[in-house]
Amino acid sequence: MTELKNDRFLRALLKQPVDKTPIWIMRQAGRYLPEYRALRKQAGSFMDLCQNADLACEVTLQPLRRFDLDAAILFSDILTIPDAMGLGLYFSAGEGPRFQRTITSAADVKALPNPDPEGELQYVMNAVRTIRKELDGSVPLIGFSGSPWTLATYMVEGGSTKDFGKVKGMLYSSPIAMHLLLDKLADSVTSYLNAQIAAGAQAVMIFDTWGGALSPEAYKAFSLDYMQKIVSGLTREADGRKVPVVLFTKGGAQWLESMADTGCDALGLDWTINIADAKARVGDQVALQGNMDPCVLYSTPDVVSETAQKIVADFDGNTGHVFNLGHGIHQHINPDNVKVLVDAVHAVPLRK
Amino acid sequence: MTELKNDRFLRALLKQPVDKTPIWIMRQAGRYLPEYRALRKQAGSFMDLCQNADLACEVTLQPLRRFDLDAAILFSDILTIPDAMGLGLYFSAGEGPRFQRTITSAADVKALPNPDPEGELQYVMNAVRTIRKELDGSVPLIGFSGSPWTLATYMVEGGSTKDFGKVKGMLYSSPIAMHLLLDKLADSVTSYLNAQIAAGAQAVMIFDTWGGALSPEAYKAFSLDYMQKIVSGLTREADGRKVPVVLFTKGGAQWLESMADTGCDALGLDWTINIADAKARVGDQVALQGNMDPCVLYSTPDVVSETAQKIVADFDGNTGHVFNLGHGIHQHINPDNVKVLVDAVHAVPLRK
Repeated sequence: MTELKNDRFLRALLKQPVDKTPIWIMRQAGRYLPEYRALRKQAGSFMDLCQNADLACEVTLQPLRRFDLDAAILFSDILTIPDAMGLGLYFSAGEGPRFQRTITSAADVKALPNPDPEGELQYVMNAVRTIRKELDGSVPLIGFSGSPWTLATYMVEGGSTKDFGKVKGMLYSSPIAMHLLLDKLADSVTSYLNAQIAAGAQAVMIFDTWGGALSPEAYKAFSLDYMQKIVSGLTREADGRKVPVVLFTKGGAQWLESMADTGCDALGLDWTINIADAKARVGDQVALQGNMDPCVLYSTPDVVSETAQKIVADFDGNTGHVFNLGHGIHQHINPDNVKVLVDAVHAVPLRK
Repeated sequence: MTELKNDRFLRALLKQPVDKTPIWIMRQAGRYLPEYRALRKQAGSFMDLCQNADLACEVTLQPLRRFDLDAAILFSDILTIPDAMGLGLYFSAGEGPRFQRTITSAADVKALPNPDPEGELQYVMNAVRTIRKELDGSVPLIGFSGSPWTLATYMVEGGSTKDFGKVKGMLYSSPIAMHLLLDKLADSVTSYLNAQIAAGAQAVMIFDTWGGALSPEAYKAFSLDYMQKIVSGLTREADGRKVPVVLFTKGGAQWLESMADTGCDALGLDWTINIADAKARVGDQVALQGNMDPCVLYSTPDVVSETAQKIVADFDGNTGHVFNLGHGIHQHINPDNVKVLVDAVHAVPLRK
């Protein structure tokens, strides 16, 4: 394999010394970039892009040409696994992702196949292989998956939800069926992420977008325990380097200690916690990734710079921090502000 | 004034001894009740109900006829103030509340009038007076308002939002305009709640539905400080009794200490924190209201009872707890489960 020219991102996740705070941005490849919108217009649907390795690679590389980012992230969707299980993923305008079929019972769960990462999901692995080759060692490539609980919310609700009535209805009324579903998903996510690592992903991230909608007891039993199972089953080394695992529960700032106890290498943080407080609580155990409110990017270059500098200063360390937003970048953000952000983060001198 | 027959709710908020844990339910008057749906069909829109004192009173009393609730809450909307400021509130099917006009600048803010609670908002005060009279001292009446920040989100976005792009865009780009808006709203909310107290409300609650979407620094500066200003300006006694103030920031479990420091009497809790932990943190200063996940009500009567009993047991006190859901009841809940809940909470023997 080609040697990695910029390994700042991997080093920070493993708390090895770095020269600058590394930065990447959730959804850095996407609709806020005019070149993405142009390609999308030409290529068809979002899933058409994901399923074509060359197009997925092109989209993945677009933000790296504009900004001095320290990592690339596979262009894909968190819902590829339930789609490969046969639920029929589609995107309806204004409503986000939807499934043609939903899960309503233990019988439905038992009928779900465990998809083969090099079968139904091979298009993802092909994208990983293509991107890794094209990156040519410039920066590391991040693989990812949705968490079992987050996948389950879409599979039971049939799409996005405000109140989680159906999926929590199942959780509280049929906990056995819910555990069966989550256990199957944990197995599938483990194989899926391990296949991404085998195909070339150099770090992996688990997105638990909806764990924060749960009570503390339900979070542990229905989200965290299954993420822990995944972390325990992951290949943690490839090409003679450690493959770091990042866990991100949006709205999970109250539960950082138990998240860190899963054995992951880093925690993603949303913006509802000051990163200094997060570091004081779990900084001995894990690295931290985050955590600027994406809405700061609607503001002026000066405010963007100052806010970024303050977060780096609040972290106040010489490694163990990967700068990111607290959630994905919004589609109406001006890309010029992203350049300001990336350069501002890199410009902050680190404590020796 | 008629003497209050059941003052368990007020006593618990003030940490005076109670015989049982009091309970009421956010949105207890609403769409999950068939009698509400029938009246609504007959009467017209949601705002038609709010603006007619007799209908608002009838709707307020409906749940009290079915369940052994310890408080009534004024049937109204959190957006009455911006509507009275001239923004034109309407409800579009499936989209929730919308405004015809939005706030985009400091000039827009300066042009907003401070509505007169006994003028444009007199319909609310008339409803309070009618309900208080009809309750005839059976249980206390709760008045309420949205928090300044929560009102501002709707006024700037024009309706519900997932990403708060416009309102946070204004917060980060034009903080002076945002402070001007919030300050004006804090004054209006103070007059509005004081008028409700003068009209007969025996406790008041401030709903900060969207404070949890902010960073810790922004929460303090743009939501909490204005709620504090309101708390400081409220009439705290009426008819020779203390009028307790409850503060509720959904998603605010990380900030309970600073919420308690506002001088309010109680904090509303959503379900993302165990009530024992909340009590350990702020139980010496304030009473607690909450905090069952509304989705538990989709489950069986046994699960509803057990979950309710566990929350009362977790609180483990002889006063200072008002049972409630962590957010409003959903429209598809079976009312029979609400009866199970209310009776289960009352049946738990309290520690002496």
